[in-house]
Amino acid sequence: MRATIMHAPGDVRVEERDKPTIQQPTDAIIKLVAACVCGSDLWPYRGADSLNKPAAMGHEYVGIVEEVGTDVRNVQAGQFVVGSFFASDNTCEICRSGYQSGCVHREGVGGAQAEYMRVPLADGTLVTTPEMPDADKIPSLLAASDVLGTGWFGAKAAEAGPGKTVAVVGDGAVGLLAILAAKQMGAERIIAMSRHAARQALAREFGATDIVEERGDDGVAKIKELTNGLGAHSVIEAVGTQESMMQAIRATRAGGHVGYVGVSHDVELPGLEMFFSHVHLHGGPAPVRDYLPELIDLILRGEINPGKVFDLELPLDEAAEGYKAMDERRAIKVLLRP
Amino acid sequence: MRATIMHAPGDVRVEERDKPTIQQPTDAIIKLVAACVCGSDLWPYRGADSLNKPAAMGHEYVGIVEEVGTDVRNVQAGQFVVGSFFASDNTCEICRSGYQSGCVHREGVGGAQAEYMRVPLADGTLVTTPEMPDADKIPSLLAASDVLGTGWFGAKAAEAGPGKTVAVVGDGAVGLLAILAAKQMGAERIIAMSRHAARQALAREFGATDIVEERGDDGVAKIKELTNGLGAHSVIEAVGTQESMMQAIRATRAGGHVGYVGVSHDVELPGLEMFFSHVHLHGGPAPVRDYLPELIDLILRGEINPGKVFDLELPLDEAAEGYKAMDERRAIKVLLRP
Repeated sequence: MRATIMHAPGDVRVEERDKPTIQQPTDAIIKLVAACVCGSDLWPYRGADSLNKPAAMGHEYVGIVEEVGTDVRNVQAGQFVVGSFFASDNTCEICRSGYQSGCVHREGVGGAQAEYMRVPLADGTLVTTPEMPDADKIPSLLAASDVLGTGWFGAKAAEAGPGKTVAVVGDGAVGLLAILAAKQMGAERIIAMSRHAARQALAREFGATDIVEERGDDGVAKIKELTNGLGAHSVIEAVGTQESMMQAIRATRAGGHVGYVGVSHDVELPGLEMFFSHVHLHGGPAPVRDYLPELIDLILRGEINPGKVFDLELPLDEAAEGYKAMDERRAIKVLLRP
Repeated sequence: MRATIMHAPGDVRVEERDKPTIQQPTDAIIKLVAACVCGSDLWPYRGADSLNKPAAMGHEYVGIVEEVGTDVRNVQAGQFVVGSFFASDNTCEICRSGYQSGCVHREGVGGAQAEYMRVPLADGTLVTTPEMPDADKIPSLLAASDVLGTGWFGAKAAEAGPGKTVAVVGDGAVGLLAILAAKQMGAERIIAMSRHAARQALAREFGATDIVEERGDDGVAKIKELTNGLGAHSVIEAVGTQESMMQAIRATRAGGHVGYVGVSHDVELPGLEMFFSHVHLHGGPAPVRDYLPELIDLILRGEINPGKVFDLELPLDEAAEGYKAMDERRAIKVLLRP
């Protein structure tokens, strides 16, 4: 089968690989219907994350179950499934508390930018749709697998809700979908921090009421100006750098909430400033599995259309161009069709 | 009048100073009934905080109102009052959200280790008792002014409550009173981290069910051992060092809550570890004012006896000995009588 392999920073190739097989009785093999390139895939692509050996890429996926291990009960061959980027048993105490991405048996899921992939702990990880979804729902269901679920967690961690002013740092797919999530959760005012016209337009479509183009201290000053000098109630951080984290923390009012979902890179939070900021800080890898049933339902009922973040669609064989387009910010997010 | 002045690290003297006067129409002057030495007073005493000029010490106080400014409405001369270490208007949006220590008009309060002190924003800052309290309630009411309120905030920030396992890092007065607070909030199990026999005994009296003597990685391992490998639901950090913060974060389960109330000194939180820890982090200077009515009521009804943290009582003139006893950990907390 064909699979996307990263050999080195900037070097992504689609190559022939063995089709994955069941390794544990709790595994499933799925035939991918669609996959995509993640903002986090750009870290190794840009050399910001190290790469010790060639890596099979992709952790966002929708597909049709091809085969299941002997212990799998909840999914069967032929069903359409959406999964998340951490496999989880969905039964342990941590899973039951809503933190499946912290499952005591969690495993990373990889190799989704391919024709087939193996998903561990299939019963806990995969969620089936009631029937085979229409083609126009595929991008949105794929978004649910990571970027929507991650934006959703950011909004939840930031306690977005009725009466709240929410600011979003980062205008990638996760930031944009955090806007959609905050809107769904009833936020009163949603401020998108973006200086990119196409992303600003999508932000507004998803529910942003204000756009702030300034960054860093200027961006913080602008948020304060818009919030009576106090800062936002809720700020969602969807980048993962020192600058974006400090921008998020400083833009939040005393007693407010920062939800951070950008994977922190070389971030050090200054203790004394944190202490006197009085913010709540919560984030990490999103427990997407917890939200999938609700998100799938919202998508199938046509209530939300998160698939709009995919502004470039390519055949799997052109994955390298997909990485390039995202790296150069020509595309917000790239959908790959095996 | 006599007042406690710190001239340099280790150099505390009780000296003659002018009696404070009303400076703003919102001020009150109170005659101190009792004051005390705070763990945070030890930072400059030990040279860990810099001291640019001699400082009038003390920010925990109970007393009798001597005089009020022309705009003060809620308190009057002759009333017994408890205050908190930040003056707040108690009317701004931040105060109304329960973060009086982040009040937009907040001011530090100082000079309580003296015969008289000036309290700014008296209407928002001071809480009166229904009548003159009995002498045996004075230590507990004084504790409410800071250490109890701070421990209470730590327990609240850590979301201590029914069904929760709570661990407390730090066995100073704040840590011990965080145990009392967690118990009041209904925590199921409370683990005190202490290696000091007298403090362990008080911890048990306040509600601790387990004692862990190990620190750092060993302390974390012990907490995990006691919690089925998962970590505590709630951890209260009441020290403020890099080691104690990391101990608190690492002892917390995924999705759990760290409440930190030790003033962070030279603390840098590693972003990537925080991200994957999945903990909630909240803390800062406690909004004691928010809790005072409830705490005063619990004390006057005899439900709690936080004054037990005072294991040494001295006349104000011997304040220097009070600092020394706390610095050498001979005393948990020292009460000073003007």
